Amino acid sequence: MAQERLISADSHVNPPKDLWVRNAPSKLRDRAPRVESTAQGDFWIVDSQISGAIGLDASAGRKPEEFKAFGLSYKDMRPGSYDPAARLADMDTDGVEAEVLYFGGPVTHIDVDRELRMYVVRTYNDWMAELSQAAPGRLVGLAHIPLVDLDDGMAELARIAKLGLRGFHVDPFPDERGGKPFWDPAYEPFWSLVEETGLPMSFHIVGARKQNVAEVFMNPTPGVKETFIAIAPMSICEVVSTLVFTGVLERHPKLQFVLVECGIGWVPYFVERMDQTFEKHRFWTKSIITEKPSTYWYRQGHATFIRDLAGVAARHRAGLRNIMWSTDYPHSDSTWPHSREALAAHFDGVPDEERALIAGGNAAALYRLH
Amino acid sequence: MAQERLISADSHVNPPKDLWVRNAPSKLRDRAPRVESTAQGDFWIVDSQISGAIGLDASAGRKPEEFKAFGLSYKDMRPGSYDPAARLADMDTDGVEAEVLYFGGPVTHIDVDRELRMYVVRTYNDWMAELSQAAPGRLVGLAHIPLVDLDDGMAELARIAKLGLRGFHVDPFPDERGGKPFWDPAYEPFWSLVEETGLPMSFHIVGARKQNVAEVFMNPTPGVKETFIAIAPMSICEVVSTLVFTGVLERHPKLQFVLVECGIGWVPYFVERMDQTFEKHRFWTKSIITEKPSTYWYRQGHATFIRDLAGVAARHRAGLRNIMWSTDYPHSDSTWPHSREALAAHFDGVPDEERALIAGGNAAALYRLH
Repeated sequence: MAQERLISADSHVNPPKDLWVRNAPSKLRDRAPRVESTAQGDFWIVDSQISGAIGLDASAGRKPEEFKAFGLSYKDMRPGSYDPAARLADMDTDGVEAEVLYFGGPVTHIDVDRELRMYVVRTYNDWMAELSQAAPGRLVGLAHIPLVDLDDGMAELARIAKLGLRGFHVDPFPDERGGKPFWDPAYEPFWSLVEETGLPMSFHIVGARKQNVAEVFMNPTPGVKETFIAIAPMSICEVVSTLVFTGVLERHPKLQFVLVECGIGWVPYFVERMDQTFEKHRFWTKSIITEKPSTYWYRQGHATFIRDLAGVAARHRAGLRNIMWSTDYPHSDSTWPHSREALAAHFDGVPDEERALIAGGNAAALYRLH
Repeated sequence: MAQERLISADSHVNPPKDLWVRNAPSKLRDRAPRVESTAQGDFWIVDSQISGAIGLDASAGRKPEEFKAFGLSYKDMRPGSYDPAARLADMDTDGVEAEVLYFGGPVTHIDVDRELRMYVVRTYNDWMAELSQAAPGRLVGLAHIPLVDLDDGMAELARIAKLGLRGFHVDPFPDERGGKPFWDPAYEPFWSLVEETGLPMSFHIVGARKQNVAEVFMNPTPGVKETFIAIAPMSICEVVSTLVFTGVLERHPKLQFVLVECGIGWVPYFVERMDQTFEKHRFWTKSIITEKPSTYWYRQGHATFIRDLAGVAARHRAGLRNIMWSTDYPHSDSTWPHSREALAAHFDGVPDEERALIAGGNAAALYRLH
């Protein structure tokens, strides 16, 4: 078996518990993100809001029988979550050369005032830059850019581009958290800036539109939680379609975007569906785009998967250069520490050069890892 | 080229304009569904609500350049929409042996009192039975069963089973229109009755969760309408997942369901995603199902497509006996009058026996057309 270069295009950190409190300005100290330990496990708290539980985010190395949605604490999780040396050791165990790093919780899902929001985001982005510098080319930390206030978001994007970060993520549904929907023309200067920075823009899985994960996970009816998890990826289709049909990708041909942890097996269908929509409906809708939607996808879109046999089987339709493997370490879908075997199951009959692109080559090109 | 037997598993009627008024009880006559002609075209009105415009539903035979979302009238549409003899002639033109027939508008999207609702539904179902009897085995009208009041819905289901109708459709998101969500245990007697009737239960495409088509089609921002159309099928994943994970399909192994006009190319991905969800999350969620989700899909699920090259290419993963071709006549996605050519484009390299199942054999088996 060929030993492809493995680059995980989607892995996760759980930052140090004291990241936001250790140097907080005194007026923000009581409201800054902190981990509170309770009899029900550790929780991330921002201001007075619970923004995440330690549970499924700390699954790497556990069997499914041991997974918990909450009820774990920082001491239960692999130190690779927050400590660069420990992470590199875990990556070596798994044969993974580099990882592109995300975090949600108090960074992405908060409803706080502007001052606290920008403190949380800047502190996080600075830490991601520092983490990345601990192992250049192996730890690829991404920034988060909040879109609640577009001027603030653009200022932070310009700032992180200078910090040397290789990309950033934004909320796929900003209109659910105080921002505008992506079809709003108010985003135009933002799209221009994204294109100018040359940094890939990621949309990480969050779940179905207008579903609250905490509420769903409290629903005692059998099957409701599993449905939340199973359907979570599909909502991302709206983002792709909006970027395509509102002409963002046509007006900004160098803008590259990434759908993260949403799988790839549905991409061939959806690209074809967008093309049919364009073919049949562009006249009465007065479409402003000039190429078939698939043209923009193949030129500017990317998507990551963890395990997706259907997607790799349909790789040419999904776009051989548009799909990127990942481990999701240390979350519950992770294949760690058996990632190479999990990936090999997808590669039966796949030529070596195609395996190399999917396993790491595409991510290396997108994030300029040489 | 082999001439497969063509059965459209999803076509549409536009009932006669006076269907609900010609014999309406006097106390319902003013509120019963009727077609009102305006300078902006014909609209279906129920009580004082607009429940549909004549436009995209009357597209068959028109070029995309001529499509309109509204602005057409009954006289602009092909009489095959409502007249059985004209429909059979249009089917002959297209080489189609049989069609499974749906309608939405005032039948499915109304918010009226119980008496009017049941008058609308019973009158429609009686008409569908009559239409089907006009050409047994060629016109396969389905009933609509409203779920706002489950007792009423069950009574109507028992009634239409005796009328000889071959199946029925329900709202995929009853909780958006006064009913309960499908995970609610209150549906259990309904599922039992569905299984007992042996009639396939359909869920027809409606659009994304909590999006109002009229509102979206009024949005002047370029691209918003196309996104509504492109993403419309994906919301149906929630229905599949709910039937699987809440154990409906396990408890009712003879219940057969059909996803209508939502395509098939995403099915391989989604079935695998449900299996992974089960594998990883069944312990902490305390799953009540005992088999892998894919087992239930292949045993009880069906999906229709109009054009779906990705789906037919992945037919073995989607389930060779679970996928059914359709024309969507006379709607905007229709391939009429070139359906055989459109389907042939999907069949390059597909063995004859597989073509026969997809083009008509599976629908013939499900709806007992011999």
